[in-house]
Amino acid sequence: MSIRSEQAFLDLIDHAFPTGAGRAGLTQGFGRGDDACIVEPGGAMCLSSDLFLEDVHFRRSYFSPADIGHKALAVNLSDMAAMGAQPTGFLLNLMTPPDLDETFFAPLLEGMARLAAAFHCPLLGGDLSRGARLGLCVAVWGEAADRFLRRGRARPGDELFVVGRLGLARTGLLALEEHGLSAAAKLPAATTAHLRPQPRVAEGLALAGLPGVRGLMDVSDGLARDLPRFLALSQGCGAELAMAAGSLHPEVRAAAECPEAAVAAAMLGGEDYALLGAAAPGALRSILASVPEARGIGRVTSKAGIVLNGRLWTAEGFDHFGR
Amino acid sequence: MSIRSEQAFLDLIDHAFPTGAGRAGLTQGFGRGDDACIVEPGGAMCLSSDLFLEDVHFRRSYFSPADIGHKALAVNLSDMAAMGAQPTGFLLNLMTPPDLDETFFAPLLEGMARLAAAFHCPLLGGDLSRGARLGLCVAVWGEAADRFLRRGRARPGDELFVVGRLGLARTGLLALEEHGLSAAAKLPAATTAHLRPQPRVAEGLALAGLPGVRGLMDVSDGLARDLPRFLALSQGCGAELAMAAGSLHPEVRAAAECPEAAVAAAMLGGEDYALLGAAAPGALRSILASVPEARGIGRVTSKAGIVLNGRLWTAEGFDHFGR
Repeated sequence: MSIRSEQAFLDLIDHAFPTGAGRAGLTQGFGRGDDACIVEPGGAMCLSSDLFLEDVHFRRSYFSPADIGHKALAVNLSDMAAMGAQPTGFLLNLMTPPDLDETFFAPLLEGMARLAAAFHCPLLGGDLSRGARLGLCVAVWGEAADRFLRRGRARPGDELFVVGRLGLARTGLLALEEHGLSAAAKLPAATTAHLRPQPRVAEGLALAGLPGVRGLMDVSDGLARDLPRFLALSQGCGAELAMAAGSLHPEVRAAAECPEAAVAAAMLGGEDYALLGAAAPGALRSILASVPEARGIGRVTSKAGIVLNGRLWTAEGFDHFGR
Repeated sequence: MSIRSEQAFLDLIDHAFPTGAGRAGLTQGFGRGDDACIVEPGGAMCLSSDLFLEDVHFRRSYFSPADIGHKALAVNLSDMAAMGAQPTGFLLNLMTPPDLDETFFAPLLEGMARLAAAFHCPLLGGDLSRGARLGLCVAVWGEAADRFLRRGRARPGDELFVVGRLGLARTGLLALEEHGLSAAAKLPAATTAHLRPQPRVAEGLALAGLPGVRGLMDVSDGLARDLPRFLALSQGCGAELAMAAGSLHPEVRAAAECPEAAVAAAMLGGEDYALLGAAAPGALRSILASVPEARGIGRVTSKAGIVLNGRLWTAEGFDHFGR
């Protein structure tokens, strides 16, 4: 049974996201309220949006409805984390195929609402439509406590650091693709990293408060692809990375055939939503003191290209349009 | 041939939307710039988003690529118009099926870019993904010159007015569905109304500047469905409408079997993106002087329900989830 009417769907949304949960100064939207929501930011805002589509970004065979709702919002909150911003509201655009009913969408919305509540980020509008495939498009915005963190601010000599485990989500993805949800028993951390990434908003805010942090981004397509993007505006810069297999998550090591393969997985693995940052020379110590999960991975050089463990890195991460 | 890489697609976007076209205080996004765009609003903002999906909202058989790009943005700009806001930026999320290449997406982006330039509303970010079907999700935001116009502010005795022709887009839709693009020769205004709706931003801004305007919305699902939404927060209010077939666009009359059918088409027709407003008693004259396209259509009553030409209206407009 599909959902009877747009009204029934809006009721489902209202149940998951009670209007009273909105923050002061914000007005509930979603079709029945107004043509747009109204917000009153205290100053500059940052805005971002991401698609989350069935059989492109997730599979219903091993994502629970609540996982789908969680991750569609989490990947957007991670963009706010990467800006050093506190997310302050979001819009949900939902494409619903005819074979899914309330028993599917109620837990999807609950999964999203739990994450939204945990990050004090209210749902303020969006759009509903029939669609051939299940898909979500979230647009999110946020404000900085102090300053926004940007890419392209790194300079030669800066130290590079990450917050989060590299390669873990990809290890989970590959296991889920091969074994389905039964992979969760053997690789609980890796499968959870893929199904339920945790946006690092608190860490992003903490980093924005540290003057030694020069720039930040979130690693969504793998370090091998995202590090060049991070350095793109830093003319002629490259990086020297030191990454030992022993520094990686035990499940990344366990799933890899050899230590080199584990390191390659950490370089190529997308969707970790780890934060990648640059610290001015000498600032890493104070960063590690404030954000204990951060780990140094190398430094920015004045020579283009990425050198990993002494060898030039040539492989590339994931390209949505590559074949 | 599909598009080679995400980079090739980003180059296509850059060509259609040159970075220099951005407004002061805004930072270009779209993946390569940063995790989010940064904006510096002068005060309160309004935000909205809409899906625009193949075979739900448009067909490739009679929408040109440029029409698709135009309309995906136009329906969002219309939400800003309905708030009395100047749109100041948007995000584009694009789902691309493998059978479409640059020859399709270049004119799609050009059609969108022309409309964006006409309304001084820069593209500031978004997301690209493979998808089973072509689809667009635009998120837009704007600022008010003076005040935002809202729904639910009408009171009994207020006069109702519309800016734009009712039923015209639906007349075009039905003809396009039956005859394809050849319908454009017989019904040029109606087919253009469906393919290339014009967001009424200037009119929305002008109306926000008139103190007699109590509220505004855009009519996207037909007056019969949208008028109750407009009145929803005005406890127990209804409306008495007077609508003569002679007041409708000649193509709406020509396409209808009889005058009553033409009036029903105007009540039910969605996607006109006309503006529907309420004016305090006596204020309509000054509104008509400032916005000559506005026409009075009736008044708000203290009795729930819509009375059209002396008879209670019972039919309903379009429901995305109805069967």
